[in-house]
Amino acid sequence: MPVLSLQKSEELAAAALCRCRTSEANAAVVANALVTAEAEGLVSHGLLRLPIYAGQTRNGKIDGCAVPEVSFPRAALAAVDAKNGFAYPALNLAAQFLPRIAREYGIAAAGIRRSHHCGVAGHHVRRLAESGMLAILFANAPAAMAPWGGNRAVFGTDPVAFACPQPGRDPIVVDLSLSKVARGSILSAKRKGVPIPEGWALDPEGRPTTDPDAAMAGTMVPLGDAKGTALALMAELLAAGLTGANYAWEASSFLDAEGPPPGTGQLIIAIDSGAFGASTAHLAKIAQEIEEQPGARLPGARRSEALKRAGREGLLVSDVLIAEIQAL
Amino acid sequence: MPVLSLQKSEELAAAALCRCRTSEANAAVVANALVTAEAEGLVSHGLLRLPIYAGQTRNGKIDGCAVPEVSFPRAALAAVDAKNGFAYPALNLAAQFLPRIAREYGIAAAGIRRSHHCGVAGHHVRRLAESGMLAILFANAPAAMAPWGGNRAVFGTDPVAFACPQPGRDPIVVDLSLSKVARGSILSAKRKGVPIPEGWALDPEGRPTTDPDAAMAGTMVPLGDAKGTALALMAELLAAGLTGANYAWEASSFLDAEGPPPGTGQLIIAIDSGAFGASTAHLAKIAQEIEEQPGARLPGARRSEALKRAGREGLLVSDVLIAEIQAL
Repeated sequence: MPVLSLQKSEELAAAALCRCRTSEANAAVVANALVTAEAEGLVSHGLLRLPIYAGQTRNGKIDGCAVPEVSFPRAALAAVDAKNGFAYPALNLAAQFLPRIAREYGIAAAGIRRSHHCGVAGHHVRRLAESGMLAILFANAPAAMAPWGGNRAVFGTDPVAFACPQPGRDPIVVDLSLSKVARGSILSAKRKGVPIPEGWALDPEGRPTTDPDAAMAGTMVPLGDAKGTALALMAELLAAGLTGANYAWEASSFLDAEGPPPGTGQLIIAIDSGAFGASTAHLAKIAQEIEEQPGARLPGARRSEALKRAGREGLLVSDVLIAEIQAL
Repeated sequence: MPVLSLQKSEELAAAALCRCRTSEANAAVVANALVTAEAEGLVSHGLLRLPIYAGQTRNGKIDGCAVPEVSFPRAALAAVDAKNGFAYPALNLAAQFLPRIAREYGIAAAGIRRSHHCGVAGHHVRRLAESGMLAILFANAPAAMAPWGGNRAVFGTDPVAFACPQPGRDPIVVDLSLSKVARGSILSAKRKGVPIPEGWALDPEGRPTTDPDAAMAGTMVPLGDAKGTALALMAELLAAGLTGANYAWEASSFLDAEGPPPGTGQLIIAIDSGAFGASTAHLAKIAQEIEEQPGARLPGARRSEALKRAGREGLLVSDVLIAEIQAL
């Protein structure tokens, strides 16, 4: 397997997307997001998504040339129309405005509609934390989890992400999906042709399964059982109900080129970390309390280290994937 | 066991608190919160807390006569100092201001410091939803959960609550603690002298236990394992880090009369449900999608029904508890 620098990987990915009805600007943004995920070790959100995205831009399920638009329905809110393009440029636009609004009013939110897969949810809150904000993101995704006691998928494996600035070091980043595992992990097993552990997913009849194909056709097990579905209901109402985006069960798949655009949504809340007068030392205390325990780590620390290592040493990309990208 | 009307129960509880260094106004607010919890079937947050609270007001761990104060550090933020009194009057004060700020700016937040046990977290978001807001609450509680991979408690069994208005019916209310079960459920088993199910808690050496005493001395199992501790880290940083309140491990117990005031915190975020232009019909769609599945229910529905029933039929209160309250 060849080792590519991050820059070279991004160029390869961006060039491939540009050949698939995608503007140069959008291709660069998407390539950067996928390569960063790959470098962080999050392969299920990395370059394996590129051929999937390209199939969608070619079929018009994603408008690869869309330019997102922002409006300000209230003083502390930004509403972003992703125009059925990629989510990444829309999320970038939101991140441009949120810090200055949150600094002025103390808190701000951006709602994004007609959107798509948000990729690594942690990326979008981390950069807000780098601007001194505590940030929370809720996103929705196509239906994959049933309500507790029901059998038909109503919720996506919706991600929740959170970041908090830390003085003199990387922000704390929490990033998780509300299913027991991310759907991307099943996609990744399916591509590798390996079974999934028991307890991750149910088949279309609601029975436990270790077959990734049956799992993709069935539903995901929520994190923490009934509590996970309650949190997913919250995520759907914030990311789609409030913003006017499609709910999970109204959204087409992120993973194939069939049907109309998914039209999912995201909500990002940013709060100025100093607004209530707490010191940065107070915000830093909890990291110390965790890290002084042997065996305990801050969430996000492993990703950060992997990203730095990939920046120095480059990225190991499979020949199959490179061939697939070059064939686009 | 005698059946008391809700009003009679509140009068009994308020009168008892008034005899324990608590102002009439605060006693009425606390009594209402506890009786409502009891009527909803949430006995672990109901009247069994009254003798515990009373022990704390008598010892000065709770200032029963505190009058919370609000300030507005930024246009869309309210900062409430609970002054080491009960949390309930401070949360009421926040709820008075949040809807009007959120209507003006689209979003608003209230941070509460020097606070105490927030009781049923869902109550505080439900009334904001009744004013047309989507609302989220994060609260922290004394240390009860270890970071993933660690063995010393750093996080509380922190509650997260969410509510969303629904046209022509009660709001949807999500209310959960980030432990597998609420600590109150263990307290309740301890009082009844019954064992707890396996998987709820660990003893002080980190071993699984079914003994409620060992569980109270040990740590709680987080919901969804590592993901639960990541969510608890988020809750601590929002409820305590941002607001300047004590973190879980800095807070004294909610359950005994020893030590200084716990000084925990709460953060409530309110967003005007119509601010992004989505219709109330759009907000209502997901309830329909869930309720048309046999066996599935909306979170909060059971509590609502129990409360209405108790309003009609009264509340069954144990003789022991009544004697305990009257003895105060």
